[in-house]
Amino acid sequence: MFAEPSAKTADLLQRMRDFFDRYIYPNEARHHEEMAAFRRAGNPWQLSPLIEELKPIAREAGLWNMFLPHEHRGVPGISNLDYAPLCELMGRVSWSGQVFNCSAPDTGNMETIERYGTEAQKDEWLEPLLAGRIRSGFLMTEPAVASSDATNIQCSIVRDGDHYLINGRKWFSSGAGSPDCKIYIVMGKTDPDAPRHAQQSMVLVPRDTAGVKVVRHLSVFGYDDAPHGHMEVLLENVRVPVSNMLLGEGRGFEIAQGRLGPGRIHHCMRSIGAAERALEMMVDRLQARIAFGKPLAAQSVWHERIAESRCMIDQARLLTLNAAWKMDTVGNKEARAEIAMIKVVAPNMSCKVVDWAIQAHGAAGVSQDFWLAEAYAHQRTVRIVDGPDEVHRNAIAKLELAKRR
Amino acid sequence: MFAEPSAKTADLLQRMRDFFDRYIYPNEARHHEEMAAFRRAGNPWQLSPLIEELKPIAREAGLWNMFLPHEHRGVPGISNLDYAPLCELMGRVSWSGQVFNCSAPDTGNMETIERYGTEAQKDEWLEPLLAGRIRSGFLMTEPAVASSDATNIQCSIVRDGDHYLINGRKWFSSGAGSPDCKIYIVMGKTDPDAPRHAQQSMVLVPRDTAGVKVVRHLSVFGYDDAPHGHMEVLLENVRVPVSNMLLGEGRGFEIAQGRLGPGRIHHCMRSIGAAERALEMMVDRLQARIAFGKPLAAQSVWHERIAESRCMIDQARLLTLNAAWKMDTVGNKEARAEIAMIKVVAPNMSCKVVDWAIQAHGAAGVSQDFWLAEAYAHQRTVRIVDGPDEVHRNAIAKLELAKRR
Amino acid sequence: MFAEPSAKTADLLQRMRDFFDRYIYPNEARHHEEMAAFRRAGNPWQLSPLIEELKPIAREAGLWNMFLPHEHRGVPGISNLDYAPLCELMGRVSWSGQVFNCSAPDTGNMETIERYGTEAQKDEWLEPLLAGRIRSGFLMTEPAVASSDATNIQCSIVRDGDHYLINGRKWFSSGAGSPDCKIYIVMGKTDPDAPRHAQQSMVLVPRDTAGVKVVRHLSVFGYDDAPHGHMEVLLENVRVPVSNMLLGEGRGFEIAQGRLGPGRIHHCMRSIGAAERALEMMVDRLQARIAFGKPLAAQSVWHERIAESRCMIDQARLLTLNAAWKMDTVGNKEARAEIAMIKVVAPNMSCKVVDWAIQAHGAAGVSQDFWLAEAYAHQRTVRIVDGPDEVHRNAIAKLELAKRR
Amino acid sequence: MFAEPSAKTADLLQRMRDFFDRYIYPNEARHHEEMAAFRRAGNPWQLSPLIEELKPIAREAGLWNMFLPHEHRGVPGISNLDYAPLCELMGRVSWSGQVFNCSAPDTGNMETIERYGTEAQKDEWLEPLLAGRIRSGFLMTEPAVASSDATNIQCSIVRDGDHYLINGRKWFSSGAGSPDCKIYIVMGKTDPDAPRHAQQSMVLVPRDTAGVKVVRHLSVFGYDDAPHGHMEVLLENVRVPVSNMLLGEGRGFEIAQGRLGPGRIHHCMRSIGAAERALEMMVDRLQARIAFGKPLAAQSVWHERIAESRCMIDQARLLTLNAAWKMDTVGNKEARAEIAMIKVVAPNMSCKVVDWAIQAHGAAGVSQDFWLAEAYAHQRTVRIVDGPDEVHRNAIAKLELAKRR
Repeated sequence: MFAEPSAKTADLLQRMRDFFDRYIYPNEARHHEEMAAFRRAGNPWQLSPLIEELKPIAREAGLWNMFLPHEHRGVPGISNLDYAPLCELMGRVSWSGQVFNCSAPDTGNMETIERYGTEAQKDEWLEPLLAGRIRSGFLMTEPAVASSDATNIQCSIVRDGDHYLINGRKWFSSGAGSPDCKIYIVMGKTDPDAPRHAQQSMVLVPRDTAGVKVVRHLSVFGYDDAPHGHMEVLLENVRVPVSNMLLGEGRGFEIAQGRLGPGRIHHCMRSIGAAERALEMMVDRLQARIAFGKPLAAQSVWHERIAESRCMIDQARLLTLNAAWKMDTVGNKEARAEIAMIKVVAPNMSCKVVDWAIQAHGAAGVSQDFWLAEAYAHQRTVRIVDGPDEVHRNAIAKLELAKRR
Repeated sequence: MFAEPSAKTADLLQRMRDFFDRYIYPNEARHHEEMAAFRRAGNPWQLSPLIEELKPIAREAGLWNMFLPHEHRGVPGISNLDYAPLCELMGRVSWSGQVFNCSAPDTGNMETIERYGTEAQKDEWLEPLLAGRIRSGFLMTEPAVASSDATNIQCSIVRDGDHYLINGRKWFSSGAGSPDCKIYIVMGKTDPDAPRHAQQSMVLVPRDTAGVKVVRHLSVFGYDDAPHGHMEVLLENVRVPVSNMLLGEGRGFEIAQGRLGPGRIHHCMRSIGAAERALEMMVDRLQARIAFGKPLAAQSVWHERIAESRCMIDQARLLTLNAAWKMDTVGNKEARAEIAMIKVVAPNMSCKVVDWAIQAHGAAGVSQDFWLAEAYAHQRTVRIVDGPDEVHRNAIAKLELAKRR
Repeated sequence: MFAEPSAKTADLLQRMRDFFDRYIYPNEARHHEEMAAFRRAGNPWQLSPLIEELKPIAREAGLWNMFLPHEHRGVPGISNLDYAPLCELMGRVSWSGQVFNCSAPDTGNMETIERYGTEAQKDEWLEPLLAGRIRSGFLMTEPAVASSDATNIQCSIVRDGDHYLINGRKWFSSGAGSPDCKIYIVMGKTDPDAPRHAQQSMVLVPRDTAGVKVVRHLSVFGYDDAPHGHMEVLLENVRVPVSNMLLGEGRGFEIAQGRLGPGRIHHCMRSIGAAERALEMMVDRLQARIAFGKPLAAQSVWHERIAESRCMIDQARLLTLNAAWKMDTVGNKEARAEIAMIKVVAPNMSCKVVDWAIQAHGAAGVSQDFWLAEAYAHQRTVRIVDGPDEVHRNAIAKLELAKRR
Repeated sequence: MFAEPSAKTADLLQRMRDFFDRYIYPNEARHHEEMAAFRRAGNPWQLSPLIEELKPIAREAGLWNMFLPHEHRGVPGISNLDYAPLCELMGRVSWSGQVFNCSAPDTGNMETIERYGTEAQKDEWLEPLLAGRIRSGFLMTEPAVASSDATNIQCSIVRDGDHYLINGRKWFSSGAGSPDCKIYIVMGKTDPDAPRHAQQSMVLVPRDTAGVKVVRHLSVFGYDDAPHGHMEVLLENVRVPVSNMLLGEGRGFEIAQGRLGPGRIHHCMRSIGAAERALEMMVDRLQARIAFGKPLAAQSVWHERIAESRCMIDQARLLTLNAAWKMDTVGNKEARAEIAMIKVVAPNMSCKVVDWAIQAHGAAGVSQDFWLAEAYAHQRTVRIVDGPDEVHRNAIAKLELAKRR
C-alpha cells in the first residue's frame, strides 16, 4: 500500500501476529481433530473447546471486538482502513475470528444493534454479544425466491396488537448452527403494498421463541462448517413484542445499506488473507516436490501462476484498502462503487489462487490433509452470498454508464 | 457428430435411456437418502441397497459389462466409438455405472486382467468381477511423492522365494472403500536399479491378505464419496504368491500404457455427460427464477454462458469421439496425442460448465439440494488424477514440437 | 476427424497442396513486395500481377470454382464437408483464394445469383464472375446504424416506374476496392412499413452506374488490405432497371439466410488454416530462439500454450466439419445452431493462437516481417463482421433455452 | 487512491487538463489528417506541424519536462508518485507527450544523461533535448537474437585508440524515424569475455556519424507510427570518440537498471490513461447504438464488461501508484517486484479493455475512424517491448519463491 499502516494498526497487527504464532497456528490440527471427533460421534453442532479456551486469552490481551469503532465497546476511533489488515490476518485461519469476537455474522449484527437498536435492545442483546457469551444469526436469504433481488424476500411480519407475527422460511442462515447462537435478526415484509424499498423490516427474534425451528444444515461443497453452519430455519407463527423492531417498520433496506459496507471490507480482506496463505502453500509445495527430475517450482508454467497470483492479490488488497479509505473519508454512499468492486474482485481472485494451489498439491489438494479444498469451497460461496457477482457487476456498470449520460 | 452412431450403439443407447428413465432418475433421491442415513448412523462404507437391487435388473436387460469387447464376457466387437455415448449417459448420474458393472476402477482392472492375466488369475478374479459379485481397487498413487511422474512410485515389491513381499503406502485408491472390494492391483518397484521404465511391476493383492490395512478415507472437497471412497492403504510386509504377478516383473509401465486409453474415453465421456446435465439444470433454473422483474434467462450475460457451454460441450464431445475413433482405427499409440488432449479438455470444460450452473443456482448450487457442488468436486479432481493437466499438456506439446524438428 | 475425407476431397486436397508448394508459398514474398511497391507509388488499388498470372494456371489444373456444387459451373456434387478442407488450406495464405476463384465475397455472390438469379442475370453477371473476369461486392453494413441487427439497415430502394432508385451509405464493403469489381449486390429497404422481415430486398447494382461513389477505404488495424479493400460506398439517386431485383421485393432476408451457411463454413475453415499456420510458426520460432541459456521451446509455459493451441484448433475443426456435415445432411435451417457456434468458436480460437504466436516472436511478431499481425487483424475483424460474437451467442442460447421450455 | 494527490500534482494536473481541453483534444483530427496527408504524399517522416506549434505554448505554460525531478531542468522535487497522474492523462492521446517534452524514449535518455553523463555530454546533448530542439533514440533490441535476454545483445563496441568502433544491427529503435532525432544511446558489448553482466556498455552515437544507416521502419500491426517510428538501424564501422562512453565500459547493465524504473511508471500510467479513454468510448457507443429494440448498454453482457473494465483499471492504477510510491520511498531495487508487476498488469489490462471497446464499436472499432485499433496495436506491443510478459512473470515468481526458501 502507498501509505504506511497507522500506528494503531501497526500495534494491533503485531500483537495479533504474535497471538497467531502462539495460539492459533499451533492449534489448527487440534481444532480440526476436535470437530472431526464430534462429527464421528454424531453431533458436530457443539462449541469448539479450543475456541472457548482461547477467547478469554484474546480478551485479556486486548484483542477483542476490534471491529467496533466505539469508545467503550471496541477500539476507540478505529477506522475501516485501520481494521482491514487485521481481517486479512484472520482470513488465514477460518475459525480465528471467533477467538477475537470478530466473526461474521456477529460483527454485522453487533454493528446493527449498536447503530440502530434501542437502549433496551442493546442491554439485552448487544452486551452479551460483545462479551462473547452468545452468538447471533442473520436471517435474510430464502429458498423459494432469487434473494439476489432483496425485494423478492417473502417472509411475512404482521403486526398483531403488541406483537409481530412472523412466518417464513430462511436458509443459509450462517452461524445459526452454533449452540450459543441465541438471537436472530430477521428480514421480512411488514407492508407488501408499500413502495418497493419500504416494504421490508428487520426484527429481533430470540432463538428460543416458540415457532422457531432449525430444520437442517446446508452443506457447502460437502462441508457442514460446524459448529458455525449454514442453517435452514423455519419461522411458523413466531410472535415477538413490537419493541423487537429495529429502527422502525419499513426501514429494513435502510439498515441493510448501513450495515453493508464494513462487512464487505471484512469479507474481502479475509479472502485476501486466504489467498496469501494459499500462495505460500503453493510455493512451499512446488519447492518440495520433484517430478521429471526437477522441482515443480522450476517449471515456467508455475512461474506464470505464482506471478499472476502475486499480481492479483496485491491488486485486490489495494482495491479493498482504497474502498476502506473511501468509506472512512467520504462515507458508504459515495464509496458504493468501490464497495461493489471489491465484492466481485476479492473472492474471484482468491478462488483462482486457491485453485492453483490445489493443482500444485495434486490429489492432496482436494483432501482433508490440506486446508485448500475447504478454502475453495468457502471462497466460491462468497461469490454468491451477499449478492452474486452478476448483481454487483450490474451495479458497477450502471454507475459507470450514469457518469457519461 | 458427423457420422450417425452405429446400429449397435443406437440400440444400446435407446435401451439405456429407457432404463435411466425407469430406474435411475426416479431413484436418485432414494440413493442420496440411503447413503445419508448410513452416514448419520456412523458408517457409510456399506453396499448401496439401491444399486444392489438394480444390478440384476440391468444384467437381465442385457445392459451389463458393455465396456468389454469380448465375445462371451461383454459385447462382441463393441468399439470405443460405440461405447462412448453410453459413458456419456452414465456420466449424468455418478453412481449409475455400478448398476451396469461399468464403473471405474473395475472396468480398467477387468480389462487389465482380461488382457494380461493368466487363466488362473482370470478364473479367480475376473469371473467374479464380471459377475458383479466383487469389486476391485487400483493402488498406484502415493502420498510421499509426486505421482504425476510414475517413475517416482516407491512401493517396494521384493521377491522372496515363491512370494513377493510388498511394502508401501498408497492413497486415493478409488473404490477401496466398498465392502465388496476384494482385490487390488498394486503398482510398485521390483527393481529400482533397472532402466527407468522397467523398474515397476503390477501385482494382484487380495484385500484380506495379512498386512493390508485400509487406514482412512480421503475426502474430496467435503465429500467422502462413500461407499466407493478414496482410501489410504498401508501395505506392511504383505506376502503374495509369485503367481499373482501380472504379465511379468518390470512390465508395470507396459500394462499402464495398455490400460490407459479406453479409461480415458470413459472418464471424458462421463465428464461430458455431467456437463450436459449441468447445462440442463442451468437452463431450467434460469427460466424458473425471477430477479429484478424478469427471468434470469433473459439476461444476456447468461446467454453468453449458455452459448459458451454449448460450444464447449459439443467440441469436447467431438474431440473425444474422434480420439475413440482413432484408437479404434490406428491404435492407442498412434492416438496418444488425441488421448492426452481429451484428458485435458473434457474435465476443464465440465468444471467450467458446472461452475456456471452453480452460479445460476445461487447458494442452492453449493448445497446438497442439487448435485452440482458434488459434480464440481468430482470434475475438479479429474483434472488431477491419472496425471494432472500440466503433464498431459507437456506431452501434447512435445509431440507438436517433434513434428517440426 | 472420425471419418476419412471423401475420395473427391482427398484428390482435390492433394492437388491443391501441390499447387501451394509450387506456386503459392514460393510467391508470398513477391506478392507482398508487389503490393508494397504499388503502395509506395501512391495507389495500391491495382490488380495483383501475381494473382492474375496464377489464375489461368489454377483453372487449367482444374482447381477452379470448387465452392460451387454445380454440374457445369463447379465441381459436380461437391458437398460442404468435401469443400471444407480446401478452405482450410486456402486460409494459410490470405490472397490464395482469388487464385482459385474461391474468395469472398465473390463465392457468396455467385452462389446467390446461381440460386436466386434469373437466367438473364446469370448470363450477364454469373458467367464473367465464374470465369474470373470480374469481381463483385456485397453492400450490406452501414455506418450510421448497428448493422448487427439487420433490420436496422436504412438504404432505401424505391420503385420508380421501370427502375429502382437507390439511396444509402454502405461501408466495410469488402472486395469493392479492386479495379475489376464490377457488380454489387445491395441490401436495402423496399418497404419500411412491411413486417420486420419483409422490408428488405437485394438488388444488383453495376459499379459504373451513375450515382455510385467509392468514397474511401476503411483500414483494419492499420492495414488497407489492398487491392481487395473494405470500402465506403455512397449511393446517391442510383437508378437500376427493375429486372435487377433478386428473387423479388421484400425477400432480402430470405436470400441472406440462404447464402449464409456455406460462407460460414468457408470463413471458419480459413480461420482454422490460419491458426494452424500460426502454430507452426510459433513452434518453429520457439525452437530457434535461445534465451537464458535454453530454447524458448523448453519452457513449460510455452508447452501449455502449444498444447492449448492444438486442443483448440482440433476442436474448432471438428465442430466446423460437423456443421458442414449437418448442413449437407439436414439442411441449413436444422443446422443453424451449429452454424452460429462455429462463427463464434473459430475466429476466437484463431485470435488466441495467432496472439500467442505473436508473443513467441517478440517484437518481430507485430511487424511486417511476419504474417502474424496481419493475420490477427483479419481474424479479430471476423469476430465482428457477419454478426458480432454477441449476436450469435444470443442465437445459440435462445435455441438452447427453447429446448427446455 | 487512498491518499489525495499532492498539491504539486493537483496543480499540474489541473493545468494539464485545461491544456488538453484547449489544445489537445480539439486538435486530434487535425494531427491525424496532417500525418495522413504526409503519408499520401509519400513521406510521413516529417515533423508534425501541430506538435511544433504547441510545444512553445506548453513550455510557456510551465508544462515542460515535468518528468525530471531537477531544480533547474524540470520540476524541483517532483516524485514518481507526483508525476504518475500526469502520465495517465498523456496516455489518452498518443502524441501528446511530445508537446510537453515528456515522451519516450527521450525521457529515459534525458534521465540517463542527467544521471550518468559527464558535464560535456550534458552540455552537448542534454541541453538541446531538454529544450525540445532535438530528439533521441535508444538502440537496444536486435533482430538476430532473443533480446528479452539482454545478455544476448551482440552489437560490438571495440576500443580503437581514442575511439570506439561500433558494428551491429538494431531494430525497433523507437523515435528514430523523426527527422529531429539527432542522438542515439547504443547498447553493445565492449567485452564478450567479461562476466555476464559486465560485458555490455552504453555509448552516445550522433545520428549523423558515418556508418549509421536508418534502413527502414517496422510497422506495428499495420501502423507506421510516423513520424516517431520504430526503425531498423544499421551500424557499420561507426566511430565515436571514447568520451562518448556513458559511465564506463562494462556498466551498461547498471545504467539499464537505473533508467528502468521511472520509465515503467510512465508506460504503465499511459496504458491506464488509454484504457480509461477506451472505457469512456465504449460506454458512449453502447449508449448511442440501438439493436434489437434497445440500446446495447442495456444488455447485461456489456454490464459485465464495463464492470470488469472499471475493476481492472482501478486495480492497475493503484498497483502502479503503489510501485511509484515504493520507488520514491525505498528505491528501485527494493521496488523491483512491484515494477515487474505493473509491467505485466497494465498493458494486459489495457489490451483487454481496448479490445472490448473495439467489440462495442463493431466494424468501426477496427477502422481509422476511431482511435481504438491503433491503441490496441500499441498496447499489445507494450506487452513485448522492454521485456515480454514471460520474462517479468519469471522475475516476480523468483522473488516470491525466494521468500519461502
